[in-house]
Amino acid sequence: MSTTSSSSPWRTLKIGIIGFGTFGQFLSKTMIKQGHSITATSRSDHSQLCHDLGISFYRYIYIYIYIVCVFHVFITCFATPRDMDRFLEAENDVILLCTSILSLSNVVNSIPLHRLKRPTLFVDVLSVKEHPKEVLLQVLPPELDLLCTHPMFGPQSGRDSWEGLNFMYDRVRIRDEAVCSSFLQIFARKGCKMLEMSCEEHDKLAARSQFLTHTIARVLSEMKVESTPIDTKNFQTLVQLKETTMNNSYDLFSGLFIHNKYAQEELKNLEVALEKVKQNLLDRMNEELDPSVSKH
Amino acid sequence: MSTTSSSSPWRTLKIGIIGFGTFGQFLSKTMIKQGHSITATSRSDHSQLCHDLGISFYRYIYIYIYIVCVFHVFITCFATPRDMDRFLEAENDVILLCTSILSLSNVVNSIPLHRLKRPTLFVDVLSVKEHPKEVLLQVLPPELDLLCTHPMFGPQSGRDSWEGLNFMYDRVRIRDEAVCSSFLQIFARKGCKMLEMSCEEHDKLAARSQFLTHTIARVLSEMKVESTPIDTKNFQTLVQLKETTMNNSYDLFSGLFIHNKYAQEELKNLEVALEKVKQNLLDRMNEELDPSVSKH
Ligand SMILES: NC(=O)c1ccc[n+]([C@@H]2O[C@H](COP(=O)([O-])OP(=O)(O)OC[C@H]3O[C@@H](n4cnc5c(N)ncnc54)[C@H](OP(=O)(O)O)[C@@H]3O)[C@@H](O)[C@H]2O)c1
Ligand SMILES: NC(=O)c1ccc[n+]([C@@H]2O[C@H](COP(=O)([O-])OP(=O)(O)OC[C@H]3O[C@@H](n4cnc5c(N)ncnc54)[C@H](OP(=O)(O)O)[C@@H]3O)[C@@H](O)[C@H]2O)c1
Repeated sequence: MSTTSSSSPWRTLKIGIIGFGTFGQFLSKTMIKQGHSITATSRSDHSQLCHDLGISFYRYIYIYIYIVCVFHVFITCFATPRDMDRFLEAENDVILLCTSILSLSNVVNSIPLHRLKRPTLFVDVLSVKEHPKEVLLQVLPPELDLLCTHPMFGPQSGRDSWEGLNFMYDRVRIRDEAVCSSFLQIFARKGCKMLEMSCEEHDKLAARSQFLTHTIARVLSEMKVESTPIDTKNFQTLVQLKETTMNNSYDLFSGLFIHNKYAQEELKNLEVALEKVKQNLLDRMNEELDPSVSKH
Repeated sequence: MSTTSSSSPWRTLKIGIIGFGTFGQFLSKTMIKQGHSITATSRSDHSQLCHDLGISFYRYIYIYIYIVCVFHVFITCFATPRDMDRFLEAENDVILLCTSILSLSNVVNSIPLHRLKRPTLFVDVLSVKEHPKEVLLQVLPPELDLLCTHPMFGPQSGRDSWEGLNFMYDRVRIRDEAVCSSFLQIFARKGCKMLEMSCEEHDKLAARSQFLTHTIARVLSEMKVESTPIDTKNFQTLVQLKETTMNNSYDLFSGLFIHNKYAQEELKNLEVALEKVKQNLLDRMNEELDPSVSKH
């Protein structure tokens, strides 16, 4: 597609980031270098960092409303209007959602969308894709464009270069081609491998790859596996994998599980495979230790 | 220790390799380059390869004797005398055991040791260490020296260089320092990190590192995990780890389990850790999906 080629035309954009945590900060640095103009809003106070980066920051504060029913307390929330209003009124070309997977629905539902002054492209970067697509299609009025993306890298793997790193995207509802193309150019120009793919296809593949990788890293961490004086190269690789993966928040890991419908099945597959490997070892051990069985 | 420094004196050795499979072949190539003179013996016919490498090859053939008891068939075996005799009479300085972990005991018990014409250093390279130490101390007469070693690398990880790769050794019974030192120099001169350590300490650490790595690779292989179009860097690392580890024989993997007394415990630890990670995910999912629980 023409949008994915690094030689396609592009223009600088006004990008408003919602959720200025680890990943939002990481992306913003490249965007600033490319000349895009950034504003940000987040639950926590990132004003000092934003000031240092030259980003206008608008903090929003949730107001939780507890609805007490016979047996349950239902919780709903919305953002305090003043700062979020000013953030939305900044007339961004793109609103980039970089919140955690688990908070996306609450965050999106608390945006006073009527404050938007112009058609805007909504983009999310969540590590699961069907969930944000569903939530956003439900909440966004039809005149707002939607691009669902997953940059398959983070502050560690993309620290030195984005060259050759995978960038998945699904053009869910795009009318303003120029804005969408300019946004994709942020990644294409950095050398990312641009992969257009449905959100469903992404989730199927990512449960088998990314979720599995995170699960193995969490298991190694649970076991307190550390470097030894007699490491093999492959074991060193595992220790490093554990360490880089554990830099991600637990929210991110549990989001990969809770909001990817294929993840439960992959967790089951992992358990079954471990059980099979163990059973084969025990069978082999019994063969070896039972002198009545012919070996080799 | 002076034996581990790459500047220690050394001389070329006559080395007889028992077990000329993947790893024996791999080691022999470096030894030949360093000027050592190699002979080999093995169960299978490696005569053509040995001819190409300039190695004298003596094939031995097991003779199995089945002793039928009331309920069991006991199996014992010895090597055919002629070729093994000629191998032993070649007056080697070192006999290097490169057989599989599972076959070591049979192989060692079938060597007609009385054919040795001179004191000889026995060295093993098995990936477990207490087991060969015990077997060899039981079988070798006290005038034969014994060095137990584990080069923590193989044909893949040591393909381009051995620089910085770990080499573990335990000087179990050494009188001829010159021969032992010259043997260790093979690895020290190639830049290996020389680590003197007891066989027990090795097995404790290796169950947690190497056995765990192999188990994870076997589990990924059991799951038929393959590269996807949207791999993250860490997932690519896992796929590569699976592929390089699966080049090792199943005999090697099961040997790591059956003859390292710490391996069963580590397998259990792995299962428990996976169960814990799963339980935490399910608890978190219930929290998220139960609106009566306060989140975030
Ligand atoms: N890290 C990566 O390598 C990577 C790569 C690709 C995609 N992603 C995706 O990028 C997004 C952000 O990831 P992350 O690494 O920064 O860590 P994360 O833990 O997944 O998300 C942290 C972000 O979520 C916000 N947040 C968390 N709980 C919230 C709540 N209850 N209400 C409002 N906001 C909330 C945080 O806001 P405050 O900072 O204001 O508290 C912060 O901006 C995630 O969707 C993740 O899947 C991450
Ligand atoms: N591969 C590595 O990266 C590596 C690294 C460090 C240490 N090691 C150790 O090196 C040794 C050899 O490893 P490997 O990779 O070559 O593969 P392996 O499958 O562990 O062992 C293959 C060798 O064992 C011999 N063998 C197997 N069953 C036998 C039997 N019943 N009777 C007699 N000989 C038998 C084979 O002889 P034939 O070829 O004649 O059939 C071959 O020489 C193992 O103890 C392993 O733990 C391997």
